Amino acid sequence: MAGTDHTRELILGGPAVILVNPQLGENIGAAARAMLNFGLSDLRLVKPRDGWPNERAVATASGAEVVVNGAKLFDTTREAIADLQHVYASTARVRDMTKDVYEPRAAAGRLRQHSADGERAGILFGAERAGLANEDIAKADAVIAVPANPGFASLNLGQAVVVVAYEWFQATNPNPHAPGESVKATSEQVLDMFDHLEGELDARGFLFPKAKRPRMVRNLRNMFHRAGLTDQDVRTMRGIIHALAGTKGRPKSG
Amino acid sequence: MAGTDHTRELILGGPAVILVNPQLGENIGAAARAMLNFGLSDLRLVKPRDGWPNERAVATASGAEVVVNGAKLFDTTREAIADLQHVYASTARVRDMTKDVYEPRAAAGRLRQHSADGERAGILFGAERAGLANEDIAKADAVIAVPANPGFASLNLGQAVVVVAYEWFQATNPNPHAPGESVKATSEQVLDMFDHLEGELDARGFLFPKAKRPRMVRNLRNMFHRAGLTDQDVRTMRGIIHALAGTKGRPKSG
Repeated sequence: MAGTDHTRELILGGPAVILVNPQLGENIGAAARAMLNFGLSDLRLVKPRDGWPNERAVATASGAEVVVNGAKLFDTTREAIADLQHVYASTARVRDMTKDVYEPRAAAGRLRQHSADGERAGILFGAERAGLANEDIAKADAVIAVPANPGFASLNLGQAVVVVAYEWFQATNPNPHAPGESVKATSEQVLDMFDHLEGELDARGFLFPKAKRPRMVRNLRNMFHRAGLTDQDVRTMRGIIHALAGTKGRPKSG
Repeated sequence: MAGTDHTRELILGGPAVILVNPQLGENIGAAARAMLNFGLSDLRLVKPRDGWPNERAVATASGAEVVVNGAKLFDTTREAIADLQHVYASTARVRDMTKDVYEPRAAAGRLRQHSADGERAGILFGAERAGLANEDIAKADAVIAVPANPGFASLNLGQAVVVVAYEWFQATNPNPHAPGESVKATSEQVLDMFDHLEGELDARGFLFPKAKRPRMVRNLRNMFHRAGLTDQDVRTMRGIIHALAGTKGRPKSG
């Protein structure tokens, strides 16, 4: 069942995936396959240990040739990220606490926003054994950490790419299997909903004291961002706010 | 960095992962590693093509011995699921439309509920090329389908396990990196919140007409389930409902 299905839409694009000093061709191929599974196609390699091109990478990519054959090769991480406006570093452990740390779901929401803003973003992944070097993490604006079993937290390189790519696809594409939930809400719809909710809450003195308001608003928004709101969800929430606040009846579309 | 870290908690248990006729030891090992990464340890194998035990599986498991060496072997899918109360079938395409289909996030919420109810659940994964046979899907109560690129939707077996296991961990474990969001809400807290919200909405005639109420309630609950509510989120939501409904001021804990 591997390979592209030429009768159906092939989604390409998205943030760049940058593998820094990857060792095994199998892992590069697995990353390429996972990328294409979830609509990512910009693969960049910084000094892969076994050279490039790599036969084992192509074999493991199982049909994701558009990604694996299109991979761009760089000598340094610096060159690989030169054209990007936002760089995230994927790490198993949070080592540099001066950077913002996002779980993959929250990071995907941010990546989606960068894309909507017309800004290029990329995610750095380190080598199999050691992960990213501190000097590479230092080049990133923020860190992506995959929550995992404390006693067995080290993800395979290809599998770390799966998780981040999966969340990207979740954040940017409708789920064809969820009835009535087929369209993701636009940023504008979501922001309008926040304005509505926060306006009603302000009017009732809920987001108080003022010093705590920014944090309260952030927590509130994060909760809804994590839900990956659909068009229908936003309509439902708007209806709920109206109903509870007594401002009008349930809209027909709810 | 592979292997268990004996100084930190090793989470075990969770739903069973049942690989039906897996071909490559590498994929069995990758599945075992991903399972332990995300707190799953009950691996079951139905007639693996290359026999069992399998050296390549152990090598690829990269330290997840507790899973790979603990794998149970079965001759038939029927025997492998005999003790389970809930069986899900992971498929790339939705073939049997008479079953409920869940995306991994929604499925993880259900698996969490089964676990909270003290009921055993398991997820069937098919062989690398062909996926699950229709007769195996028929044994499942529901289907899990991973939303993916329409033109390149076939996930590697190990990677399909990654996605489902990752969502299980997301649904059942706190994210250590999200400040102030460290404790997942209990089922009781969430159900109390739903009662509160739906009670206020009923009082305002929002969940109306009655014939549509079950569907509206389900959509509403699904939205919050997808957010993976924390203890703090539930307190915030309770405060919001009180504030909007005018039943009392913001609680101190909000």
